[in-house]
Amino acid sequence: MINILNDKIKKTGAPIVVGLDPMLNYLPKHLLDAAIAEKGESLEAVADAIFAYNKAIVDATYDLIPAVKPQIAMYEQFGLPGLEAFKKTVDYCHEKDLVVIGDVKRGDIGSTSAAYATAHLGNVTVGSQTFTPFGEDFATVNPYLGSDGINPFVDVCKKERKGLFILVKTSNPSSGEFQDKLIKTEDGREIPLYEYVGAMVDKWGSDCMGDEFSYIGAVVGATYPEMGKVLRDIMPHSYILVPGYGAQGGKGADLVNFFNEDGLGAIVNSSRGIIAAYTKDEYKAQGITDTNFADASRLAVEDMIVDISTALNNR
Amino acid sequence: MINILNDKIKKTGAPIVVGLDPMLNYLPKHLLDAAIAEKGESLEAVADAIFAYNKAIVDATYDLIPAVKPQIAMYEQFGLPGLEAFKKTVDYCHEKDLVVIGDVKRGDIGSTSAAYATAHLGNVTVGSQTFTPFGEDFATVNPYLGSDGINPFVDVCKKERKGLFILVKTSNPSSGEFQDKLIKTEDGREIPLYEYVGAMVDKWGSDCMGDEFSYIGAVVGATYPEMGKVLRDIMPHSYILVPGYGAQGGKGADLVNFFNEDGLGAIVNSSRGIIAAYTKDEYKAQGITDTNFADASRLAVEDMIVDISTALNNR
Repeated sequence: MINILNDKIKKTGAPIVVGLDPMLNYLPKHLLDAAIAEKGESLEAVADAIFAYNKAIVDATYDLIPAVKPQIAMYEQFGLPGLEAFKKTVDYCHEKDLVVIGDVKRGDIGSTSAAYATAHLGNVTVGSQTFTPFGEDFATVNPYLGSDGINPFVDVCKKERKGLFILVKTSNPSSGEFQDKLIKTEDGREIPLYEYVGAMVDKWGSDCMGDEFSYIGAVVGATYPEMGKVLRDIMPHSYILVPGYGAQGGKGADLVNFFNEDGLGAIVNSSRGIIAAYTKDEYKAQGITDTNFADASRLAVEDMIVDISTALNNR
Repeated sequence: MINILNDKIKKTGAPIVVGLDPMLNYLPKHLLDAAIAEKGESLEAVADAIFAYNKAIVDATYDLIPAVKPQIAMYEQFGLPGLEAFKKTVDYCHEKDLVVIGDVKRGDIGSTSAAYATAHLGNVTVGSQTFTPFGEDFATVNPYLGSDGINPFVDVCKKERKGLFILVKTSNPSSGEFQDKLIKTEDGREIPLYEYVGAMVDKWGSDCMGDEFSYIGAVVGATYPEMGKVLRDIMPHSYILVPGYGAQGGKGADLVNFFNEDGLGAIVNSSRGIIAAYTKDEYKAQGITDTNFADASRLAVEDMIVDISTALNNR
């Protein structure tokens, strides 16, 4: 799957992933009204509106991008109907030939991690039948529990040819509380915890190579470009998934450190900046209204591609 | 909710929680066969069998115990039908007046953490209607992302009078890879990361007091009793949820360090040891078969109560 992702990034020239994080206040009013008219004030109506919203954005952008990243929390908060919309979204993105990164940040140990890996990247067998629970292509994973938590995910990835992005340095202001703490390594050096986790990602990934990159990648926030530079060197074979662009403050120029010289090795996420682009004045000025909201998403994707490629060309 | 949990522990004299982690290979064959006979080889059949299994165990033990802890991964791996069985299990345990600890180990930042908190501890409003997505009483949470990840959960807990158990030192063999690393604190001390996280749990919890305990608790594995002793002192107001008893190697005598002098302040989880007790020779010798599997769970709960209370009395 990492080969497919890398090929798609080369082909589109767009090292970007659209974050399908449908918060209730991003949904255009007419979509929610139509769903409520049909199904009443219910979780099912919200789920229908979320899927319609995602579908319109995917239809307007799928030819420009390699991948999407639905954030499962935004679906899980609407209970079972919400998770059904999550699965429908994953399936629809696959119909459109997009790589799907499930932003699930799961993490446990042993058979429990194996169960999460099965849920998101694997299959289950009941008697003579096989079923795909959620069926993403990549999943984000939390490393706090150590190798016992990661290895069961890696096993499923090897079997199903899927991949992981392991949290290393997250984009939020307080990520340093634990991740930046200086630790002592076995050989007596003092390095921040995120560097140590990055070195573990490199180790876990070295046994999981695709053609050019490992299918064990890392999450490093756009908001920490200097740390991105260090982590790029520590994990030379890992793709870096970069959240925090746009709404969280990361700019194109901040991103060059996350990429290799050839412009590969990183994929930058934007959620709000693309899916809620229709609410921004700059796109309203270009004739966007609530009704053609997805056209704003396409414009925002095009602008993001230019922003990143300009930054990569100017370094 | 922490007051309710503490009162129930006093009343039952059982500081234990039954882990409802229904792995496919624990399910008695006749339950799965009956469900497949009705619904075919399907995820729906597995979900029905899981709920029947849980219900029998709850019916056989609810009067002895304060709480259950369903592990959501074991349901999530069976997709939407599996998660429906999770919700039915939560609802049924509430009917039986049990406290439900959702072992979900979620963790993200900002609005995403808020969405997870809503999913598991809160409510969502659609127009004039309010819905409860999953409705557990407590949730387990991963601290790797720092305060930005924890605060949105705390906000929902304050509003809904729910609680958290934050991962501090997990029970697995490799938990030390990151959690045991020596870090430098702001005031120049060198302590393991888990102690630092424990101190943060104490800080987060100090603003969230019930009558005797904070509703922000911690997870510390039974397999690390010496660390449990240190963490008991660092977090005097936090309940400690203790996994790793039984199958993972923790024994009653290992547990005394996690409790206060008065025998409160900790709640010990057992999953396999109780729900799969019917497969053990010691209970087979007492007349247990696959058919009366839930009777073995009751016997195992009784044995666990004796094991822990003996250890507490002998210290």
